[in-house]
Amino acid sequence: MPKTIAEKILSRASDQDLEAGDYAFADIDLAMANDITAPLAVDAFNEIAEEVWDPDKIIIPLDHQAPADSIQAADNQKKLRKFAKEQNTTFYDVGEGICHQLMLENHVKPGQLVIGADSHTCTYGALGAFATGVGSTDMGAAFASGKLWFKVPETIKVTLEGKLPDYVGPKDVILMLAGEIGASGALYQALEFTGPTIEKMSIAGRATLCNMAIEMGGKTGLVATDEKTKEYTGSNREIEPDEEADYIEEKHYDVSNLEPKIAAPHEVDNVKDISEVEGTELDQVFIGSCTNGRYQDLKKAAEILGERKFSNEVRTIIVPASRKVNKKLMEEDIIEKFMDAGAIVQSPCCGPCMGSSFGLLGEGEVGLATSNRNFKGREGSPKARVYLSSPMVAAESAIKGEITDPRKNQK
Amino acid sequence: MPKTIAEKILSRASDQDLEAGDYAFADIDLAMANDITAPLAVDAFNEIAEEVWDPDKIIIPLDHQAPADSIQAADNQKKLRKFAKEQNTTFYDVGEGICHQLMLENHVKPGQLVIGADSHTCTYGALGAFATGVGSTDMGAAFASGKLWFKVPETIKVTLEGKLPDYVGPKDVILMLAGEIGASGALYQALEFTGPTIEKMSIAGRATLCNMAIEMGGKTGLVATDEKTKEYTGSNREIEPDEEADYIEEKHYDVSNLEPKIAAPHEVDNVKDISEVEGTELDQVFIGSCTNGRYQDLKKAAEILGERKFSNEVRTIIVPASRKVNKKLMEEDIIEKFMDAGAIVQSPCCGPCMGSSFGLLGEGEVGLATSNRNFKGREGSPKARVYLSSPMVAAESAIKGEITDPRKNQK
Repeated sequence: MPKTIAEKILSRASDQDLEAGDYAFADIDLAMANDITAPLAVDAFNEIAEEVWDPDKIIIPLDHQAPADSIQAADNQKKLRKFAKEQNTTFYDVGEGICHQLMLENHVKPGQLVIGADSHTCTYGALGAFATGVGSTDMGAAFASGKLWFKVPETIKVTLEGKLPDYVGPKDVILMLAGEIGASGALYQALEFTGPTIEKMSIAGRATLCNMAIEMGGKTGLVATDEKTKEYTGSNREIEPDEEADYIEEKHYDVSNLEPKIAAPHEVDNVKDISEVEGTELDQVFIGSCTNGRYQDLKKAAEILGERKFSNEVRTIIVPASRKVNKKLMEEDIIEKFMDAGAIVQSPCCGPCMGSSFGLLGEGEVGLATSNRNFKGREGSPKARVYLSSPMVAAESAIKGEITDPRKNQK
Repeated sequence: MPKTIAEKILSRASDQDLEAGDYAFADIDLAMANDITAPLAVDAFNEIAEEVWDPDKIIIPLDHQAPADSIQAADNQKKLRKFAKEQNTTFYDVGEGICHQLMLENHVKPGQLVIGADSHTCTYGALGAFATGVGSTDMGAAFASGKLWFKVPETIKVTLEGKLPDYVGPKDVILMLAGEIGASGALYQALEFTGPTIEKMSIAGRATLCNMAIEMGGKTGLVATDEKTKEYTGSNREIEPDEEADYIEEKHYDVSNLEPKIAAPHEVDNVKDISEVEGTELDQVFIGSCTNGRYQDLKKAAEILGERKFSNEVRTIIVPASRKVNKKLMEEDIIEKFMDAGAIVQSPCCGPCMGSSFGLLGEGEVGLATSNRNFKGREGSPKARVYLSSPMVAAESAIKGEITDPRKNQK
């Protein structure tokens, strides 16, 4: 029977011939938990086992509260260092980067079944892996057994065609889709991104798309492999859907005339054309996160910046997604350029995205962020408002001190 | 009557002929409060006045919880931005640097009377200013009136002679003095640092010395002006004690054979030769702070590092004291070198020094820091232990993962 990518990977991982709706007890290729979720996973694991199923397949990065921002965080991180050392698992200490970026850079290969105790694990679909978020207790069980139950999801096929206009990028595409599909429009479904626009898109751009599949309720995002996947992963493993695969829905979009998009407070699917919110005064702009903290994202922000300065009226906080990203930007003097322009550049971590470590907004403040969620209170005070945008919109807006269309200044 | 530097400055500032023990209602030249202390100072000010006495003389830097690490911090910072804008005072937003470093770089001139709502305000004595910490309520009153009551302190004259040995620096000198004089040995007294060692010492080194005057209970530290002061401040104003000035005590030290010094947990005056604590295993090393986060400090750390890497067993956190310091280090590729060696380099702020924002230690963990205080619980868990050292000792120890004498590796 012809299969979607999700059906193929879950069939392979459970050694069964599965289709959407089936349940599978599948072998996991990689299991990731971070400093927020791993402590509970370790507790759950300790209840049921003494040795992990395969230390090479367990990855624990510290990224959410990094370096430790409370005594509790410090104690939890100490516990994880000890666990990783005792069990010999892969471990990334504070400062190495965001869990999802480290997984893309160092671990994920096409066709794998990957679980992460973080909802944005779906990011790795950019490399043709079936990757999805699980709870800490499930993760603890997976640490012990290497297996987990999955329901094979139905798949929505999203075909994108057309060349993205200047100053419009992958983030605008996924925000547009979030607006079209809605926050629960793809509940427990996989989103397969395909078409000429995807073929031309970098792995970084595909990761931005897949990252936000969960914002539509999706189980995961997926992109078929191609030469770019091979080059990025160093793996020749190919995965693509069968031609006659069965989709629950097929959506087609031409992005040639796509406008820069903004998700307005307080929902990711409250999406507007930038013209509708232009001029909104900002207190803080955050460029970074597992959605848009990659080299390509910050490079684009630097191009928008040019020789200009960020507004004194705005705190501009830039956080590269990993040490590798930071290094590349530093070699090209982009970090220095951001700093000279007045930005605060922090070492790789999740940053202000989830409002715990630094860069929190106060009552009545307005933030623009390149991250993936703008829920009430997520980035600080429940009386703050957060808008989401692309790195290009964020950079232009940080310069002007208000939400600004990057196309205007460049023409 | 011949006068000490403290007597001269307080006499000038109160337009009276004062000596130690006198009380003076003096005109303040500069008043500084940071994000921790300024909110209360603003409240106190609002109780008694509507306009500040002189906006040019009031400086408000946000450095302790920068960028905001809690909703409360964000709300406080918002309040300070509003106050600074309404009153037209000098304001440094998050990311610009540590209050004391910004004061040295941009504001303090020789002979001034400076108050700061932070105990390490005494740092500015490095430029020949009488600078001392005050409470937030006093600061609020000073915002309104520009005046405050002072008791003219007695002065201890500390004469230092001899060339500092290789790999021994100003921090070792001040730790040695803290050990000799004790945590309250100079209570409400000024410490005048003088002699050939001081003449050869950079402004950065003098700032390290004066910074820790408070750790002996001192009201302030002071150094007479010379060519270095002129060059640093751009001011020709000179100040030095009269030859026959009356000191409560005179201390002489020859530093030619000084050992690297360590303050062991949990008191700054619990000072030991490094040989007594060598081999102590470390979880975290922090290089930065208003004591040792200057260009010269981080440059020395980089020289110790050479082509080596920091230990994977240690989190090495480096925080330049100001944007200017960061810029200079970046131009010389020193920041990149630190990052390549595995360090976490954060944007300029107080960092882990006071254990609020990031880099907190967990239960049972051991930290080495170049900051000025190692009190129980200051850098995180009350069950953590913190040692204090020079940047050179800190760098060598971060490489080895344990407290290590930098002289051993270099011979």
